Amino acid sequence: MDYVYGPGRNHLFVPGPVNIPEPVIRAMNRNNEDYRSPAVPAMTKTLLEDVKKIFKTTSGTPFLIPTTGTGAWESALTNTLSPGDRVISFLIGQFSLLWIDQQQRLGFDVDVIESDWGQGANLDIMASKLAADSSHSIKAICIVHNETATGVTNNLAKVRKILDDYRHPALLLVDGVSSICALDFRMDEWGVDVALTGSQKALSLPTGIGIVCASPKAMEASKTAKSYRVFFDWKDYLKFYKMGTYWPYTPSIQLLYGLRAALDLIFEEGLDNVIARHTRLATATRLAVEAWGLKNCTQKEEWFSDTVTAVLVPPYIESSEIVRRAWKRYNLSLGLGLNKVAGKVFRIGHLGNLNELQLLGCLSGVEMVLKDVGYPVKLGSGVGAAAAYFQNTTPLISSRI
Amino acid sequence: MDYVYGPGRNHLFVPGPVNIPEPVIRAMNRNNEDYRSPAVPAMTKTLLEDVKKIFKTTSGTPFLIPTTGTGAWESALTNTLSPGDRVISFLIGQFSLLWIDQQQRLGFDVDVIESDWGQGANLDIMASKLAADSSHSIKAICIVHNETATGVTNNLAKVRKILDDYRHPALLLVDGVSSICALDFRMDEWGVDVALTGSQKALSLPTGIGIVCASPKAMEASKTAKSYRVFFDWKDYLKFYKMGTYWPYTPSIQLLYGLRAALDLIFEEGLDNVIARHTRLATATRLAVEAWGLKNCTQKEEWFSDTVTAVLVPPYIESSEIVRRAWKRYNLSLGLGLNKVAGKVFRIGHLGNLNELQLLGCLSGVEMVLKDVGYPVKLGSGVGAAAAYFQNTTPLISSRI
Amino acid sequence: MDYVYGPGRNHLFVPGPVNIPEPVIRAMNRNNEDYRSPAVPAMTKTLLEDVKKIFKTTSGTPFLIPTTGTGAWESALTNTLSPGDRVISFLIGQFSLLWIDQQQRLGFDVDVIESDWGQGANLDIMASKLAADSSHSIKAICIVHNETATGVTNNLAKVRKILDDYRHPALLLVDGVSSICALDFRMDEWGVDVALTGSQKALSLPTGIGIVCASPKAMEASKTAKSYRVFFDWKDYLKFYKMGTYWPYTPSIQLLYGLRAALDLIFEEGLDNVIARHTRLATATRLAVEAWGLKNCTQKEEWFSDTVTAVLVPPYIESSEIVRRAWKRYNLSLGLGLNKVAGKVFRIGHLGNLNELQLLGCLSGVEMVLKDVGYPVKLGSGVGAAAAYFQNTTPLISSRI
Amino acid sequence: MDYVYGPGRNHLFVPGPVNIPEPVIRAMNRNNEDYRSPAVPAMTKTLLEDVKKIFKTTSGTPFLIPTTGTGAWESALTNTLSPGDRVISFLIGQFSLLWIDQQQRLGFDVDVIESDWGQGANLDIMASKLAADSSHSIKAICIVHNETATGVTNNLAKVRKILDDYRHPALLLVDGVSSICALDFRMDEWGVDVALTGSQKALSLPTGIGIVCASPKAMEASKTAKSYRVFFDWKDYLKFYKMGTYWPYTPSIQLLYGLRAALDLIFEEGLDNVIARHTRLATATRLAVEAWGLKNCTQKEEWFSDTVTAVLVPPYIESSEIVRRAWKRYNLSLGLGLNKVAGKVFRIGHLGNLNELQLLGCLSGVEMVLKDVGYPVKLGSGVGAAAAYFQNTTPLISSRI
Repeated sequence: MDYVYGPGRNHLFVPGPVNIPEPVIRAMNRNNEDYRSPAVPAMTKTLLEDVKKIFKTTSGTPFLIPTTGTGAWESALTNTLSPGDRVISFLIGQFSLLWIDQQQRLGFDVDVIESDWGQGANLDIMASKLAADSSHSIKAICIVHNETATGVTNNLAKVRKILDDYRHPALLLVDGVSSICALDFRMDEWGVDVALTGSQKALSLPTGIGIVCASPKAMEASKTAKSYRVFFDWKDYLKFYKMGTYWPYTPSIQLLYGLRAALDLIFEEGLDNVIARHTRLATATRLAVEAWGLKNCTQKEEWFSDTVTAVLVPPYIESSEIVRRAWKRYNLSLGLGLNKVAGKVFRIGHLGNLNELQLLGCLSGVEMVLKDVGYPVKLGSGVGAAAAYFQNTTPLISSRI
Repeated sequence: MDYVYGPGRNHLFVPGPVNIPEPVIRAMNRNNEDYRSPAVPAMTKTLLEDVKKIFKTTSGTPFLIPTTGTGAWESALTNTLSPGDRVISFLIGQFSLLWIDQQQRLGFDVDVIESDWGQGANLDIMASKLAADSSHSIKAICIVHNETATGVTNNLAKVRKILDDYRHPALLLVDGVSSICALDFRMDEWGVDVALTGSQKALSLPTGIGIVCASPKAMEASKTAKSYRVFFDWKDYLKFYKMGTYWPYTPSIQLLYGLRAALDLIFEEGLDNVIARHTRLATATRLAVEAWGLKNCTQKEEWFSDTVTAVLVPPYIESSEIVRRAWKRYNLSLGLGLNKVAGKVFRIGHLGNLNELQLLGCLSGVEMVLKDVGYPVKLGSGVGAAAAYFQNTTPLISSRI
Repeated sequence: MDYVYGPGRNHLFVPGPVNIPEPVIRAMNRNNEDYRSPAVPAMTKTLLEDVKKIFKTTSGTPFLIPTTGTGAWESALTNTLSPGDRVISFLIGQFSLLWIDQQQRLGFDVDVIESDWGQGANLDIMASKLAADSSHSIKAICIVHNETATGVTNNLAKVRKILDDYRHPALLLVDGVSSICALDFRMDEWGVDVALTGSQKALSLPTGIGIVCASPKAMEASKTAKSYRVFFDWKDYLKFYKMGTYWPYTPSIQLLYGLRAALDLIFEEGLDNVIARHTRLATATRLAVEAWGLKNCTQKEEWFSDTVTAVLVPPYIESSEIVRRAWKRYNLSLGLGLNKVAGKVFRIGHLGNLNELQLLGCLSGVEMVLKDVGYPVKLGSGVGAAAAYFQNTTPLISSRI
Repeated sequence: MDYVYGPGRNHLFVPGPVNIPEPVIRAMNRNNEDYRSPAVPAMTKTLLEDVKKIFKTTSGTPFLIPTTGTGAWESALTNTLSPGDRVISFLIGQFSLLWIDQQQRLGFDVDVIESDWGQGANLDIMASKLAADSSHSIKAICIVHNETATGVTNNLAKVRKILDDYRHPALLLVDGVSSICALDFRMDEWGVDVALTGSQKALSLPTGIGIVCASPKAMEASKTAKSYRVFFDWKDYLKFYKMGTYWPYTPSIQLLYGLRAALDLIFEEGLDNVIARHTRLATATRLAVEAWGLKNCTQKEEWFSDTVTAVLVPPYIESSEIVRRAWKRYNLSLGLGLNKVAGKVFRIGHLGNLNELQLLGCLSGVEMVLKDVGYPVKLGSGVGAAAAYFQNTTPLISSRI
C-alpha cells in the first residue's frame, strides 16, 4: 500500500493520531503472548498505577479499554448514568457535538449549552442552570477539556468552582482526549469524576486503548447506573482486578508494551516538562499565525489550546485545498476544518512526541502552501517568529547536558 | 518487562492470541498516519472487499470495529435486537456462557439450551422450540461456531436446515471468533445473518479489530432494532462508507496495514489450504492425545474442533499445574481449563499461522510436562503418532516446488 | 542506551549515515535465514542486476561486500593494482586524504596532486602528468567524486576526457561514496573502471554493504593484480556467481532485504527524480547559507556539492560548538569540520531519503544555533530563502496526483 | 521477496546465521544515528568492555570490525604476521580448509597438518613439529576451535599445554566462529593470542560484525607485522580508542544496539548457563541421532561439537536431498554437507538463542524427512530419546521461578 509513497518522512501534524516515538514503535514490534501468563498481569499492574499519574489522581480507578475515544465516552456515560438522566453538555465544536449526539442516542436528557464555534463553554449559563436546579435533577456535567475542532480549551478549575459554589452533586465527566498528557490536567484537584483519553493522542501510541479514570464518586454511581453495558462495564474489570489477572477479555499485547514504553518516556522527560513543551510549541505556532496575518479560530486568549491550533483562512481560500496540497506536494498532513468551520479553517496539531524543529518544518510547509493557494504570505515570516520564541525559551535536552 | 525472559522462542499454543507471522509484524512496524488522507480510505476499501472472502459472503456488509470479540458480540446483538427480544442461546462452555451473560445484561430474554461441557449445541431442543414458536417470538438464534473452552465445533449447516425446515424467520447470529479463517465457514450458503471474529484469532494479528459481517436481513433488522448503541452502531459506519472516508472514528493504522498483510498471506496460501492445514494440525494433535492414552474433552467426533483441543487429565493431576510448568520450564504457553473444566483440562490451541514442526515441538513439550507432573507417558509416543500422520499428508510448500 | 533521549525525532543531517526510510526499516525487521536456501540467491540475482542501474552501467560487474566504504576502497585498489604501482591521487579534503593514506599503506607509489581544501581536483596538473607519462607508468587515477569533508564535487566527465585526449590507459577508480544514487553518475559513459559506494549514504540503508562495480577493463586487470587479498578478492565472488549461490561468505540477510526495498523505492521515485531532488535540496541549502551571510567552504560554483554543504563560520566562532549545541538543544545532528577545516566549518548533509520540510526544519535549527553562538543571523532569513526556491520548484508527489 | 513464503515459522537450524531473539530484533529496529555524537562512543565503550567477558579475557583488546568471519580471519593474520612467516594450520574440514587457503593467499608459509574429516586436529604432529623447531621458525599456530563442517571441537587447552611444554613462542590464533559464546572458551587461561568470532553465530545477531580479540603478545606482534592492511588494521582502531571516539570508519548503528541487547540477554541468562544449554541441546541431538541408528560424522566423543552435529547418512541416500526436502516440505533449514562430505552428511546447527522445544520440533522434522527419503526410521524415536534427556536435565527458567 505504498502507492502514495513520497520521499522522506511524512510530516504528521493532524491533531491525532500523532507521531509515535521510535522507542515505542520498537517496544510494540513483537509477537503475541498469552495474556493469562504471569507476565502480562505483572506489567498491567504497573500500567494501572502509572496512568494514574498522568491524570494526576491518587484516588481514581483507571480502566484500559480496547477501544477508541468514542468508546471511552460511552464507557464514561453508561457506567455512571441511567437512561433519562438529565446532563448538561456544551456544544462548542465538532467533537463536543459528537459527544452530545452519543449522549442523546444513549437515552439521556441532554441540556445543551451552545457557544459559537471558536468560543469556550459558556459557564455562566451552566451556573444559572445549576442555581435553578435545587432538586438536583442535573446528574452530570459533560465537558470536553479541549475541543479538537476549534482549538479551544475549557477552564475546568472554574467548572469545579461553580459546582462547589452551588454545592451541586452532579458528576463532572471530562473528555480529555486531546488534553491529557499534554495540557495541565488535575483530576483530583479539580474534582473530575470521570476523565478519559485515547492512546493515539498525547500518549503518542497507535489507536486502540481508551483510557478512562473514575473517581470514588463515579465508582459509587456505577453501582446504580442503569444504562445497559457489557463491553464497557467497569464491573467486569473490577472483578478481574480483584483476581489479579486484570483482563475480562483479550488486550492488545503490543499496546500494553507500547504504553509501558510511552509512560517511561513521559516520566523520563517529566510530565511537567512535557506540558511545558506543549505550551512552547503552541505559543510558537500562534506567533507564526500572527506573523502570517491570519486569525486563530479561537476567539479569546483564555481558550487558546496548546495541543491544536485552528487557523482561519481568508474567505477567498477554501481551507481543504491547503490540506490537500500540503499532503500532495510537501508530504505534510494537516487537519481539515470540520462541519461548521469546514472550508474556513485548517488545523495544526502540535501534540504528542514532537520537538521544535519538527514544528518549524511544518510551519515552513504551511507558509509555502499558503502562497501556493494565493495568500500573500512572506516566506520565513512565521517560521522566524516561532524560531525567535524558541531560541529564547527552549531548554537544553536534559539527558544531554 | 523482560523479567520473564527465557532463551529461545516462546511456544505460543493458547487458543488466542496466536502467533503473528513475521511479514505481518513487519507491516505493522510503522508510525501513525492521518486516517483522513486519501491513502487510508483507499486501503480500507480493499480490506472491506477482502474480508468478505474469509466469511464466504458476497452479500454481507463487513465492519472492522476497533474492539475485541466481546465488543463484536455486542455489536452483533445491539444492532439487530431490541431489549426484551427472545433469543435462543446454547450454553456449552465458558465462551457461550459469557455471551449468554452479555445477552442477558443487554436486556434480552434469553432462552438457554444447555449441554454438558464437551458436547455440542443440542439442536433437537432448538428444533422443538422452533416448532412450538408459531408466533415467531424467537427473534434470533445465537450460537458459537466453535466453543474455545471445550474444543467443540457446532454444525451450522444443520442449524440453518432446522430453521429452514420450520420456515422460521429468526436471525442466525454466529460467534466465529475461534473458527473463521480456520474452519470451514460459509456465511451465505448457511444463511448466517451476523458472523463475527477477532483479529487475534485465526487471522493471526494482534488484538484490536472485531470483524462483524451482516447479511442483508441483519442490515434490515438494524433499522428497527431499539437497543441503545453508538460506538457499536453500524449506522455510523454506513454513513462514512457512503462518504468514502470509511471511519466514524480513528482506526488503528497499524492494524489496517497488518490486516492487509494478513489477508495477503491467507490468499497466497489459499483459504482452502489454510483450512486444510488446520484440519491437518488438529488431526495430528488428536492422534497424539490418543497415543498418550488421554481423552479429548469433546465427547463425540462430530464436534471435534480443528482450532483447539481440550485434553482431559486424570483426576490425580491438576491441569493448571501442566500449564504452569510448561511455561516455567519449556517456554510453552498452553491454555488453562476454564470454569467447570478448570483443573480438569488443559488446552492446545492450534490455530492461526502455524506449521507442522511448530506443533510437534509443542506436543513434545506437552509429553515432557505430562511426565513432570506424574503421568506415565512414553516420551515420543504422541509426537510419533502425529508425525506419522504428517509424513503422509503434508503437501510440499507450494511456493517452493 | 536511551540516556540521551530527547523528545521528538532526531534531525539527522550528517553526511552519513543518513535517514533510513520507514519501508526499508520494515523490510529489515526480520530473523536470519539460511543464505544457502534457494530464496537468498534468487533475491541476490535481482540485486546485482538492479545495482548496476544506479551506477548507470550495463557492462560493469557489481560486488556487494559486507564492509564499509573504507573496505570498498581497499577492494577497488587491491583487485586492480600491484604493490609499487604508480597511481595519481587528488588530495582535496579529509576523505581523499584517508584514501591516499590507504593507497600508500597498501604499497602503491602515490603521486599526490594537492589542492586547497574547498577546491576541486586540479585536473590541469593531472593532464600534464599524463602528458609526460609516455611510458604509461601511471596505472590508475584515484579520485573522489564528491569530497564529503568540504562539499566539493569533481568533474568526472572531464577526467575521462583528459585520459582520452592523451589516450592514456590508466584505470579510473572513483570513490562515489557520497555521490552515487544522489549525484549524476555515469559509469559507462564516463569510462569509470571501478566505482564504489557504501550502503549508509545515498542508498539510505544502515552501514554494512560496500558496493563496488568493476568495468571489463578492471576485471581484466584483476587477473594480474598482485596485491594480497582474500576477503576483498573479486575472484571468490565470481566463483560463486558462476555457481549461482553468489556468496563466498555469509551476507547480512537483513541488508539484502533492505537493499531490495531501498532500490524499489529509488526506482519508484525514478533515479533521475532522486537526483533532481538532491539538486533541489542542495540549492535551497546554499540559498539559505547566502541569506545568512555565510560562505560556502567550496570555493567555486562548479564544485558545489549537491549532497553536503560545508559552511564556513566567522573566525570568532568555533564550529564544533554549533554541532554540539544543535544536538544538545534541538536534537539536530550536523557534521563537524574535519582536520584542516576543523573548527572552521560545520556541515549539513542533504543526501538520501529526505524531503523539503525536513531540510527546512534543519535550516531553522541552524539559524537558531547560529544565534545561540553569537552570530547575528535574522531568524527566518535562510528558511525563507530556501522556501522561496522550493515553492517555485517542488513538484507534486507523483503518486499522489 | 516472499515468493518462497510458507505458513508458520521457518525452523532455522543451519550452523549460522542463527535465530535472532525478538528483543534483539527490536533493538535493531531503528533509524541511523550520527556515530560521532556522544551517544555512540558511550555505548561502544560498554560493548568493548562486555565482549571481553564472552572471550573470558581481562587482558585482551577487542575489535568490532564491520565484516564477516572471513574478514575477522584476515584481521587476525595480517595484524600479527608478515608474508613468508611459517604457520602451522590444521586441515580438518571445509572451514579450516578455507582459512588455510586464505593463509596461503596472504603469503604465509603454511605448514598444513591434515586429518580425516571427522577427526580433530592432530596435536601429536604439532608437538613433533614444535619439538623440531628449535629456531622458532614457526610464528603461529592457527586452529579452528570448532570445525563447523564436521562438528568437531578441538582441545585448545591441550594445544596450549603442548606449546608450553616446548616453551615455544608461536602465537596461538583461534577461529572461534562457531564456538565463542556457546562452547567453553577461555582466552586468558588458554593463552590464546587472537580469538575471533562473527556476530551471526552464537551471539545470535545478523551478520556484520567480526569480533577479534588480541592478547598483549598479539598486540606487540602487530607493531612489527609487515602484512599490508588498512581496513583490518588494529592500529586505526587503537588511534580512535585513544581519542574516545572509537570508530575509524562508520559502524552499523543497528548492530551496535543489537550487540548491546544480545550481550544483555547472555548476561541475564548467565554465560555459563548459555554454555550449559548448548551442551544440553547438543547431547539431546546426539541421542536422537543414535536412536535413529545413524552415525555422527565426528569420529570420537572427545571431539563432539556442542554447536553443530554432522550426521552421516547411508550410502544409498544423497544428503542434500534431505536438506532440500526439509525446506520444501517442513520449512526446516538444515546445513548441507560441504566439499569432501558433500552428499554424505547433513548438519543440524544447535547454537545461539534456541531452546528445547525448538530443537525437538527440528528433530521431529528430520525424522519425517529421513522417512521421506527412504531411511527406515521409527517416527518419534529420536525425539523421544532427546526428550527423555531433556526431561531429566532442563532447569526451570530462572526468571520464572
